[in-house]
Amino acid sequence: MGLHEDMLLMGDRALAASRQLSELSARRKHTILEAMADGIEQRRKMVLEANARDVDAGTNAGLTAALLDRLRLNDSRVDGMIKSLRAVAGLKDPIGTRLSRWIRPNGLVIVKRRVPIGVIGIIYESRPNVTADTAGLCIKTSNAVILRGGRESLYSNMALTDAMIAGGRTKGLPEHAVQLIQTTDRDAVRELVQMEGRVDLVIPRGGESLIRAVVELARVPVLKHYKGVCHVYVDSAANLDMAMAIVENAKCQRPGVCNAMETLLVHESVAATFVPRMAARLTELKVELRGDEACRGLVPSIKEATEQDWHAEYLDMILSVRIVPSLEAAIEHINRYGTRHSDAIVTEDEAAAERFTGQVDSAAVYVNASTRFTDGGEFGMGAEIGISTDKFHARGPMGLEELTSYKYVVYGTGQVRK
Amino acid sequence: MGLHEDMLLMGDRALAASRQLSELSARRKHTILEAMADGIEQRRKMVLEANARDVDAGTNAGLTAALLDRLRLNDSRVDGMIKSLRAVAGLKDPIGTRLSRWIRPNGLVIVKRRVPIGVIGIIYESRPNVTADTAGLCIKTSNAVILRGGRESLYSNMALTDAMIAGGRTKGLPEHAVQLIQTTDRDAVRELVQMEGRVDLVIPRGGESLIRAVVELARVPVLKHYKGVCHVYVDSAANLDMAMAIVENAKCQRPGVCNAMETLLVHESVAATFVPRMAARLTELKVELRGDEACRGLVPSIKEATEQDWHAEYLDMILSVRIVPSLEAAIEHINRYGTRHSDAIVTEDEAAAERFTGQVDSAAVYVNASTRFTDGGEFGMGAEIGISTDKFHARGPMGLEELTSYKYVVYGTGQVRK
Repeated sequence: MGLHEDMLLMGDRALAASRQLSELSARRKHTILEAMADGIEQRRKMVLEANARDVDAGTNAGLTAALLDRLRLNDSRVDGMIKSLRAVAGLKDPIGTRLSRWIRPNGLVIVKRRVPIGVIGIIYESRPNVTADTAGLCIKTSNAVILRGGRESLYSNMALTDAMIAGGRTKGLPEHAVQLIQTTDRDAVRELVQMEGRVDLVIPRGGESLIRAVVELARVPVLKHYKGVCHVYVDSAANLDMAMAIVENAKCQRPGVCNAMETLLVHESVAATFVPRMAARLTELKVELRGDEACRGLVPSIKEATEQDWHAEYLDMILSVRIVPSLEAAIEHINRYGTRHSDAIVTEDEAAAERFTGQVDSAAVYVNASTRFTDGGEFGMGAEIGISTDKFHARGPMGLEELTSYKYVVYGTGQVRK
Repeated sequence: MGLHEDMLLMGDRALAASRQLSELSARRKHTILEAMADGIEQRRKMVLEANARDVDAGTNAGLTAALLDRLRLNDSRVDGMIKSLRAVAGLKDPIGTRLSRWIRPNGLVIVKRRVPIGVIGIIYESRPNVTADTAGLCIKTSNAVILRGGRESLYSNMALTDAMIAGGRTKGLPEHAVQLIQTTDRDAVRELVQMEGRVDLVIPRGGESLIRAVVELARVPVLKHYKGVCHVYVDSAANLDMAMAIVENAKCQRPGVCNAMETLLVHESVAATFVPRMAARLTELKVELRGDEACRGLVPSIKEATEQDWHAEYLDMILSVRIVPSLEAAIEHINRYGTRHSDAIVTEDEAAAERFTGQVDSAAVYVNASTRFTDGGEFGMGAEIGISTDKFHARGPMGLEELTSYKYVVYGTGQVRK
């Protein structure tokens, strides 16, 4: 069989598994997920050996130290995966919930019921923990999953899926509910994202180029976020101590993630007070500042920002700073250069806050808090499969509910249409 | 400027308009929509003249009588469009609704608020009423819209959009909130569906080949349904009088639409009673029957059904009939050959109904009612922009709420992430 037929078979099997998964009770899925965690626990040695093989191959292939670090598993990282699967097992099952119910004048009772999406394809890069995390979230929501990890982590991913399946099967995990694409042929991704009727959704997780490539090929829906160019705007009515704490946290607490601040906007009426103080503190923390002319007028040591800086997702200890004449100018800057991810205003003025939250077109808009809170865990969702910067289906942090769809069940007593 | 630049400009303008639309109050949008209807009323003569030009060109180009009929406007059809716009004006505005609100242990208040999707592209074929209907639904939900109608209705669509815009502008419709692609260049569709960052959603309305072409080209999300191969299953525990009424309605009341029945499944235990009766009645009503062998054993005049018949969306007075040995076989047939649109069971057995509604993976699943009710109006949504057979974002009839997204607004008092 060729790749095309292999993938169609995989799709058919996933579809059949998704039907079986939709029949499982919440209690049954809890037991299966615990057993999948047990499966990794029991096959820990095999997982670590397979990972060592990947790391050796990666070292010989000249992978960077950063990539090798993301790839490498140890006991503590395996413990993390097990713990995460058990945490997902313990979450509330959203499937089957009645979302609404109404009765039509002709007596038809319409029930909108939450159901699984069906078959989900996950495409990701080097980190093997994505294998366990996403499989767990999909099974919890009764979705069959087809995993496609990076070629550099193939043996780790094979060992992990084997371990989860072996564990899960003892408690009734349907066959083919979790499948891993075992070829490193790049065409497998194209086949996966074009399997309409078999694959209901694809979630690419990784760098922007991976995600763009998936979107370009896809014929099935894609849930994604490209990047996070997040802003903090310090308003004329800001509490400047609060502003300083939020700016420091949003930039420095973990600069390499998508919800970290990349650009700071400061209202001109507070700039003379705030910018020198901010510059002193962030420079002390080793942040490189790049500012507009007005900024550099206040603090000459700030480097010059170019047009590219306003678009940049540094993911690093670099911050672009701009002084704006008004709230409206701040909103305009964010809607123009931002990526619809997370943006914050610091202000004591309720009307300014209302205007900002209404007009800034981002998944999460903050008043007097750090952008770093955009996260399924911080939002209280218990789990996160990713963050969406689309406005279609799901927006912002995506937890279990975002992996579901609904159906209408209509109860009649013989009604026909007039 | 070339087509690419023209389309980018159109996208930029739509995006700017969408920001203005999101600021409009429910009352203001009501007034604007009434004024858009007034605009068509006042420019009725221009609309009919433009349409006559399209119909003449279509006649000369040899369009079929059916296509010319879909294209042709008269006073009554123009009245229909005006009435439909006024009906949408009067619906409840979903924008701004608080979907949920919760407080985190650190004091952050998270509000999930309903917002517009942004910019929606509508791609459709000959019927000019789609121009008015979809523009109305988009404006009601504060979405900017870019319309791309069929080349055969270009002058009608230009006159209609001009009329709606002229009317709406007098009451504050933002400039470029409604735009029509005025070139018939096919590449404009490709440009439209690949404008990520400017277009948030594309809805193709028309035949299957149009929709497949859009999906193949698209990089932005697409909301669609391909076709409706809908089933009625007459269970062993069915009330056969009720079954007869539902079958007749689902097949004959309007056979050319997507929620009409195409295949009838009958449990073998009631087949000897039901199939001859059904065949007599439907033959009287001029329905051509195509059955499996067991069917033809009961009624020899029924033609032989082939594998293709189970996949067929006839949209005509033709029905395929199959006798099945069990409820499970009926479910399996529907999930295999159906298109996830609308399927019904006729039964007095609650357990059978529960199993059917749980296992049949369709947007709308009926118990003891005709499939013909899958419709925004019949569901009580007040309006319909289409029916989705996808399981992503929206499923089944799509009304105003399905044209919305949400954002998270997070209120803090200086919280930073630990």
